[in-house]
This record gives sequence, C-alpha cells and structure tokens, in this order.
Amino acid sequence: MNEIERECLRSLLKIPESIYEQMKNGKIPEIQIATRTKHNIEFSEDSGVWVYGSRKSVRSAKSVKGAFQLLKMAYVIGFLKEQLKTNKSSTLRELYYISENWDIAKFNEQPESDRLIEDLEIITSFQREHFHIRPEEDGATVVGPIKIREETRRGYREIHCQDDVGEGGYQIPVNVDKIEFLEHDAKFVIAIETGGMRDRLIENGFDEKFDAIIVHLKGQPARSTRRLLKRLNTELNLPVVVFTDGDPWSYRIFASVAYGSIKSAHLSEYLATPSAQFVGIRPSDIVKYNLPSDKLNEEDIKALNSILSDPRFDTEFWKSEVKLQLELMKKSEQQALAKYGLDYVTDVYLPERLSEMGVL
Amino acid sequence: MNEIERECLRSLLKIPESIYEQMKNGKIPEIQIATRTKHNIEFSEDSGVWVYGSRKSVRSAKSVKGAFQLLKMAYVIGFLKEQLKTNKSSTLRELYYISENWDIAKFNEQPESDRLIEDLEIITSFQREHFHIRPEEDGATVVGPIKIREETRRGYREIHCQDDVGEGGYQIPVNVDKIEFLEHDAKFVIAIETGGMRDRLIENGFDEKFDAIIVHLKGQPARSTRRLLKRLNTELNLPVVVFTDGDPWSYRIFASVAYGSIKSAHLSEYLATPSAQFVGIRPSDIVKYNLPSDKLNEEDIKALNSILSDPRFDTEFWKSEVKLQLELMKKSEQQALAKYGLDYVTDVYLPERLSEMGVL
Repeated sequence: MNEIERECLRSLLKIPESIYEQMKNGKIPEIQIATRTKHNIEFSEDSGVWVYGSRKSVRSAKSVKGAFQLLKMAYVIGFLKEQLKTNKSSTLRELYYISENWDIAKFNEQPESDRLIEDLEIITSFQREHFHIRPEEDGATVVGPIKIREETRRGYREIHCQDDVGEGGYQIPVNVDKIEFLEHDAKFVIAIETGGMRDRLIENGFDEKFDAIIVHLKGQPARSTRRLLKRLNTELNLPVVVFTDGDPWSYRIFASVAYGSIKSAHLSEYLATPSAQFVGIRPSDIVKYNLPSDKLNEEDIKALNSILSDPRFDTEFWKSEVKLQLELMKKSEQQALAKYGLDYVTDVYLPERLSEMGVL
Repeated sequence: MNEIERECLRSLLKIPESIYEQMKNGKIPEIQIATRTKHNIEFSEDSGVWVYGSRKSVRSAKSVKGAFQLLKMAYVIGFLKEQLKTNKSSTLRELYYISENWDIAKFNEQPESDRLIEDLEIITSFQREHFHIRPEEDGATVVGPIKIREETRRGYREIHCQDDVGEGGYQIPVNVDKIEFLEHDAKFVIAIETGGMRDRLIENGFDEKFDAIIVHLKGQPARSTRRLLKRLNTELNLPVVVFTDGDPWSYRIFASVAYGSIKSAHLSEYLATPSAQFVGIRPSDIVKYNLPSDKLNEEDIKALNSILSDPRFDTEFWKSEVKLQLELMKKSEQQALAKYGLDYVTDVYLPERLSEMGVL
C-alpha cells in the first residue's frame, strides 16, 4: 500500500471503530451521511463547482433496515481492507457477487452495493478508485503532444501519446491518478463527443498543427476521462474545450465536464473543470452555417426546457441559444460540418471559433 | 495508394464503366448484386462460414427508383476515387452529410448511404476499409505477449502489447490490415465479452501465466475486432476461445465471431473464425457451480427458441444446453464466478475448462 491507500484504509476503519465505540458506551450505533438530493446541492464559490450542503441523513441500528445497512457496510469495509492489503481490485459488479457468501449481509441487487460504495466515498472523502473498486465503463483515449508515465501492476510505462501509440491512441486507465505527466508541448486540450469527429481531427493532424491534446469523451464521459481533463487543466494549466453535437444531451455532457453532476457532487472538486469552454455546435451555428439538421423530438424539447431552469446553465449565452433552438425546432451533429467537406471543421470551423474565444 | 488500394479503385471504376458501356450500346443500364436475405445464405463447406448464394437482385434505370440508385452510386464512387487519391478517409456518417451537396443525388437518410457502401463491398469483393470508409464504432483493446507494427499516417509504430502499453492495453485501429504481427510467445487467444472480466484477467496476470492474448470484445464485437481475431487465428495459427456471459445474446456474440452474421455474409471469409471455441458460461455451469443467476425474461426466451432453429447452432452441445436453459429459466453472467472469490475464474474455472478442451 502507498501512503494514500494507508490513509484511505484508516479512514474506512474509523467507521466500524465508531460503531464499536457507540455500542461499548451503551448507545445504539448510527452513522451520519450527507443527503444526496438536489435540495442539498450548493454552488461552491471557491471551487466553482456544485457540492453537497449540510443536510445529513442518519443510518441507525434502531430500525431493522438501518441495522442491515450498518452490517453490510461492515462487511464491505472488511472486504476492502483485504483487497487493499493484497493489492487486488474488483469491479462494482464483482463486489455485488462477492456478497453472495455474506449470508444475511448479502446485497439484494447491484444498485444497493453501488450506493454503499458511494456512501463510503462521502463519509471518508476518498474515491472508489482509492478503495480499488472499478466500474465496468471504459476509459476513453488520448492523442497529443504529451508524454506520460503510468504505474501498472507490471511496472512503470512511459508513453508519448503521439509517438508511442497507434492510431487508436493511448487508452486511459481506470485510475487516472496512476498517471504522471512527464513533459508536453500542448497549448490546449480538446475533448470530443463522438468517435467519428475524434478520428477526423486525428486524420487531419489537428493535434500536430495546433498543439492540441485530443481526448475522446465517448458520449457521457466516464469518471476517469473527467478526472484526466481536470488534471490536465489544473496541473499543466491547459485550457480545456469541449466539442459536442448541438442538442440538449450534448450540453449536459459539457456540463458534466465543467460543473459536475448531482449524482456525484461529492466528487465535483475532484472531477469537474469549471473553466472548460463549450465549442460544440450551437443552435445559432445551425442558422449561420446552414447545417443539415434533424427535428427536435419531444424528449429533446423537455430536456431543453429543463436546461432553462438548470442553475448550471444560468447565463445569457445558454439562455439565448436554448431559446433559439426551441424556436428553430432543430438540432445538428458535429459531423454535419462535413457538408462543406472533410477538412472544413479543422481548417475553418474550429480555428475560427477557438480564435474568437482566445484559445488559439 | 498501395497496390491493394489501386486494385480496389479499378474495381470500383468498373461499375460506372459498365453503366457507360451499356448506354453506349443503346441499353438501359443496370447492375446485378447478390440478394441479402436469409433465403440467400449458404454454408460454405470449404471455408466453414456462411456466405451469400447465387440469387441476384437487379438495379435498373428502367424505374425512377433504380435510376436514382445508379446516380447515387456514381456520385459515391466519384467521392471514393477522390478520397483514395488524396489518402483521406471518412466515416459512414460523414459520407451521408457530404451528399448534402449532391443535389438530387443526396441521400435521404444514413441507412441509405450505409446500404450503398455494402452494395459496393458485395459488387467489388473489397471491404469498406479499402474504400477508406470508417464506422463510428470503437475498436477494442489487446493485451498479451505479441509485438505488432502498425502503419499510421505518421509512420510505423512498433508496439509490444504487454511492455509498451498501459493497463488499458493496445487500442485496435479501424483498419486491422494496417497491422503486421512481428513476433509473439502466445499459445492462444481469449476474446472476452465484458470489460469487468477483461480487467480481472489482466489484474490476475492471466496473459503472462498462460501465454494468452486477451482481446476485449466490448459486447457485440466491431468488425475490426473480428478481423483481428481471424488474422491471429489464421496467420499465427493460434486457437481462439470466446468467453462470454451465459445468455442468448452472448451465444450470438460467439456465433458472430465463429460463423459470421447474415447482415455481413459477404464478409464472412474475411471476418469469421470457424474454429473459435466457446468457453462462456454454459447453462449447465449454472447448476454445476450453483452460480448467482437472473430469471430469463420474455426476450431471452424468444431468443433461445430462435437459436434452437438457427443452423449455426445445430449441434448436440448447443441443443442440450439451450434446452436446459429453458428448463432452468435462468441466466448467469461471467462475473458471477466472483461468488467463489476474485481469483476463482483464473485459478480454477478457465484452467479446467481450457484443459478439458485441449487448449491448455
């Protein structure tokens, strides 16, 4: 175990210690934990991200349900302790199956064990990556003028994300904190929603021409991808821009990179990049570039209306763009720029937009 | 252009040449193409895969619809010619958007342009990779004792898939034929359905201990992944085993690796690995190992019944396993083996099964 893991384990073990102490003192044991609802989300001016407020829920052994929760938590902490000591890791799904042998402490369904891991993240202020718990989700890929060192179970690997990788790029590992940035020639980071557009930028040599690190988001980005963007932004001081389609789901992808999400507000400071800028397709672009478009469907309209009341989008820019989109009743994809030829996006659209925004 | 690309272009250009010749001779031009339905699928004893039979459809300019199809085909061939000459490539989605400027030859929806590319594959016997047409789908990843050389637009890259990659592995590029196998110490290839299980094998050092190349299928595998498995099997003479969940969707994943699919029967000889063996969870394993399971839903039952009449599954093994599953009314995931601990799959389950099958 390294120092962080030792601290993480100490922090986990404080939970059963506290339960034990309460029982020794003749109390019915309980634990307190931040409430995870949108009524308990606050904007932190300091860090520019959304975090949990001060409301707490109590898990007490006074009720059968609460007692079961404490029991299961004790089992999970025991499992995590073994896992950290033997330097193993497991997926959220494996953890659920492992509990098959825990008799009455067994989980009834995976969402229950997933939530318990979230509880432990909130109580300890560590992340599941520190517990060695992995998601099923895939990390995305990176191509650009940066050399990294990754700590793997088989030793260190130094990889330059242009010279030492194939066209597929460098695959982001689950635990991004095992990566060290060695050296780079990058001026900014561009995070891209779709694989087709990511491939377009690679083929057109956008990373070489503009000294850009190209990160593929693969739709709604995994934690590891958001963590990497955050680290590139804060440690290397690189601006991050997010290039997506022009529809409400894509605006939410941008928001999850820039502001974090309600579901994981306890991780916002760790995952969100508040200075990230949107370079995706804007509703006004559909008019300006006369882009091929699709009609908004009912789900789109509902999502756009919900964005109008979302505090994360409470700016002039977003309000006017979203209202325009509801008037146009249209959405466009980033690949729609191909209407003007395969090089238009890298020769015209992105250079213009990034210059306007002061990134280039 | 390399020699294959030149041949591919010649083959494409024969189509407009034939149309031109027909018109010059006073004929209404037409082209013939294999019919793509399950009534026109035949098992090829020679190659052990399913290919199209001899039924042909005709696209003739006698009808307005047919004339439009020939016009659009001519435009697409013109675009592909330019693309090959300038060494560019594009996604299926970009091609659809590119047609925005083709006036009445413009596609009405993407499935139409996708089908036209399939038509061209069937007529020319080349693959869309040769036309430089890319899908949106992601390639999967490889970890194992093999060193490859990939031809990228930025020169050649030599990558050892254990020593030169991070824990994420080597990312398979879209065009697997740009890869050359340099040297390897592998005894077999194991293709794995889920990311969680792939990570488990990596963490437990399965590739090192058993000299295995671990390929992540990511659910239903992309063409590039199937092509890679085929090449590892035929060029390096390595057995391929497929490790999946125990449900009908997973059996279909196995079948698409081993036998090819109806939708792309024209590519079976290029993509299918008839000698691939199934090491996924069997219905009889649910009983034998008393695995945690879920109840079959209606879709599962329908899919299992359809497998019973699928000629690709017409063996004693599959018939008895599928019937057993319909009796049990249960399905299990590969990660359910975690019930017996995180190492059970690599220490017990796989070694036993692979020994029985003569792979180890």
